[in-house]
Amino acid sequence: MAKNKGPRRPKAETPKGFRDYFGAEVTARKAMLDRIAAVYHRYGFDALETSAVETVEALGKFLPDVDRPNEGVFAWEEDSDWLALRYDLTAPLARVAAQYRNDLPTPYRRYAMGPVWRNEKPGPGRFRQFYQCDADTVGAASVAADAEICAMLSDALEEVGIPRGDYVIRVNNRKVLNGVMEVAGLSGDDKEAERGIVLRAIDKLDRLGVEGVRALLGEGRKDASGDFTKGAGLVEAQAEVVMGFMDALRESGAETCARLRELVGESQIGAEGVAELEEIADLLAAQGYGPDRIIIDPSVVRGLGYYTGPVFEAELTFEILDEKGRPRQFGSVAGGGRYDDLVKRFTGQAVPATGVSIGVDRLLAALAAKGRLEDAAQGPVVVTVMDRNRMADYMGMVNDLRAAGIRAEMYLGNPKNFGNQLKYADKRQSPVAIIQGEDEAARGVVQVKDLILGAKLAQEASLEEWKSQPAQVEVSRADLVATVREIMGRHG
Amino acid sequence: MAKNKGPRRPKAETPKGFRDYFGAEVTARKAMLDRIAAVYHRYGFDALETSAVETVEALGKFLPDVDRPNEGVFAWEEDSDWLALRYDLTAPLARVAAQYRNDLPTPYRRYAMGPVWRNEKPGPGRFRQFYQCDADTVGAASVAADAEICAMLSDALEEVGIPRGDYVIRVNNRKVLNGVMEVAGLSGDDKEAERGIVLRAIDKLDRLGVEGVRALLGEGRKDASGDFTKGAGLVEAQAEVVMGFMDALRESGAETCARLRELVGESQIGAEGVAELEEIADLLAAQGYGPDRIIIDPSVVRGLGYYTGPVFEAELTFEILDEKGRPRQFGSVAGGGRYDDLVKRFTGQAVPATGVSIGVDRLLAALAAKGRLEDAAQGPVVVTVMDRNRMADYMGMVNDLRAAGIRAEMYLGNPKNFGNQLKYADKRQSPVAIIQGEDEAARGVVQVKDLILGAKLAQEASLEEWKSQPAQVEVSRADLVATVREIMGRHG
Repeated sequence: MAKNKGPRRPKAETPKGFRDYFGAEVTARKAMLDRIAAVYHRYGFDALETSAVETVEALGKFLPDVDRPNEGVFAWEEDSDWLALRYDLTAPLARVAAQYRNDLPTPYRRYAMGPVWRNEKPGPGRFRQFYQCDADTVGAASVAADAEICAMLSDALEEVGIPRGDYVIRVNNRKVLNGVMEVAGLSGDDKEAERGIVLRAIDKLDRLGVEGVRALLGEGRKDASGDFTKGAGLVEAQAEVVMGFMDALRESGAETCARLRELVGESQIGAEGVAELEEIADLLAAQGYGPDRIIIDPSVVRGLGYYTGPVFEAELTFEILDEKGRPRQFGSVAGGGRYDDLVKRFTGQAVPATGVSIGVDRLLAALAAKGRLEDAAQGPVVVTVMDRNRMADYMGMVNDLRAAGIRAEMYLGNPKNFGNQLKYADKRQSPVAIIQGEDEAARGVVQVKDLILGAKLAQEASLEEWKSQPAQVEVSRADLVATVREIMGRHG
Repeated sequence: MAKNKGPRRPKAETPKGFRDYFGAEVTARKAMLDRIAAVYHRYGFDALETSAVETVEALGKFLPDVDRPNEGVFAWEEDSDWLALRYDLTAPLARVAAQYRNDLPTPYRRYAMGPVWRNEKPGPGRFRQFYQCDADTVGAASVAADAEICAMLSDALEEVGIPRGDYVIRVNNRKVLNGVMEVAGLSGDDKEAERGIVLRAIDKLDRLGVEGVRALLGEGRKDASGDFTKGAGLVEAQAEVVMGFMDALRESGAETCARLRELVGESQIGAEGVAELEEIADLLAAQGYGPDRIIIDPSVVRGLGYYTGPVFEAELTFEILDEKGRPRQFGSVAGGGRYDDLVKRFTGQAVPATGVSIGVDRLLAALAAKGRLEDAAQGPVVVTVMDRNRMADYMGMVNDLRAAGIRAEMYLGNPKNFGNQLKYADKRQSPVAIIQGEDEAARGVVQVKDLILGAKLAQEASLEEWKSQPAQVEVSRADLVATVREIMGRHG
């Protein structure tokens, strides 16, 4: 029998796949989202915040690539209803657009930012709660709405600190692919299975490469483990048309569109798609968004299966080092497109819509890699406690600093061990510590300790430097605020 | 047999007890939280954002007044674990303080703001998801930490727009009540049941009034429906001591403390509590937080059962009209206190902690009642579409406006019906609409329509005013931005 160790204590742990965000992790994300929100707002989009919880019925279809109902979401039963945490910000938008359709303006333009939840197997760097940041125009059929989203995405990236030249927004169009399918003889109702295989194959271009996709368009593909995936069974000529679509990128947008026009031949939907791409390119060019920012690029295949018209993806083009130290392009940070069937499942009426979603964590990681995160890590000035009976004096110093807009606090732990107070200031990354013992109080002075300089001197200074740059100065109590401000200004 | 009406459509509805927030509802709350966060930050508190989901084990005890485990929270089973949405921001803080105890600075000072969820019966104005906004100092036994929280709460209220004189922060102390219990002969282990009844009774002072509480201290109380609640069975002298505690508020803090000192008599814990209140009052007075902002008030009983030392409550003292048009005080918008057992359930070690929670929705309602909400409702300037073939020109106008920092958009709906475009601008609360038809384009001019003036004239203008203040002006395309800016400036 196990020895009784008293009542079992609960484990202090975040649930698997969830994490906590501390200090600068929170404020840096918030600063980035604030900047994006300002761009969205300037473009005329209104904020919307739906609740985290939706009925499973309203959420409707779940994540792509998930077969079991409820899989992929956190859901629970209440009375006879099922409720669930939202898995993205688009499904709640569809519900809102349907629920308030008589009250909302048409088009309805909203932005939303907040956490979403996915009930997936957690893995390294994969979390089950993460932020999204979306903007959508619901009820606008014009591709001017798509062009605007691309321009806005470009502005947002530059606004948060991704310089021009370090990103590119690629635009493709599902209708062109549909046209290509027609040309390849895959348009009839009886060809739905083949079309499905083709869509899934090109959606895997990133992962499988050109040859893998080519194999899936033909007989099929055997993967490294020996598993065989049946292909679409296209003959050479058919497959070449599809492959040509993904390889149609040319020097200029005009040349790319010309090549696409060749590929879609007589297909009406294909021609429509090419015309849309041309119109988007023209609108953007007229506003000064040239190919240095936004390009027509048929090699963008992500999301082609999901969207119904134009598709866009923002990619960061600078290199970072991967976990093995090899340089690689940073890659995608945002994507979106046109989806016209979103509201229909509620109302029966098709409502054209287009939008974009920014991957908040990836964009934050990109800013961190570029050294563009605002440094919000600086801790408060710490007023140490030398004499328990003079708390009011110390709080008075803190007060004066705060009144001058300087972040400050009195040490509130047990003041007995003075070393702990300085350790605390270090841990908080405090720029300055204030010390006033009995002797200083009697003389009306305080010691102001420059902790940033102190740390630097401790690491690298010679004896001469140490002497010539004292990291601690004694000043009159009346000069406290001015001295602290001067030191903080010196460190920027 | 019912007629087959095709596939059943899902209902577009928020789940019961949840709601959506639109436009200014989102941005006004955000602006308020940003201001509060700035105060918390200046005081030296760091941001913390935990995930919405916790293990039921870590959440531990649930809401007060709820008996069944899991009642009051949204919970679901995963593998053999139970997960739940957090019901407040304090339970996750306790988990974090225990989980990262070796890495966090001591004291650990954090603020947190975000939604919490309660699985309660929804009612009018009662929602199952709402915001909280907390700040806590964990690991500080000194009442200077409590005094600081009170000062910070005062600053935060003024910062968001509650003027001095319109609020008061009341401070009480659980230890004084414990002392009073001792004096009333209720201190032994065998008196736990009576103490529980007394605590619950005084916690109901708001609801039951003095006489109701008095009855519960004695034999018991019969409510309006005839139900009888058994009382603590105190004799007259005992009950008087307890009632005296709730009625000890005097003209000045010093007098109140003197009266409390009488009431706690020889009780050591009681004397300690009174000394704490005195120290808090002294510290606050030394920093200039006088009784116009923060007072010692033993009539604050809310939370006395929950907290272990000082307890604070912020009340708004101005009057609003209730749903029946009768004036009443706005009431409580924030509360907090000292709770020393929070981390103990995880680690076995008591960790002193104190903090405050602001009721975000109530404070927002108060600001709205005072007309202090930032008016974020203004819509974008709408550039109308008179000619589908000149989208690029219209987008160019929008671009110029946005580049000048003016919120603007092109009408993206179907442009066929011009009336719909102006209706859209109205619905968006747009200040200005821009119109350029073929004729204007040929002449290089635009029509700029002042929609705010237009609405005013339509409501109240005489014919002369109508003529003398044209709500629409024609200006050169080059003057578009300057004209719009001038009109918007005129309306503030």
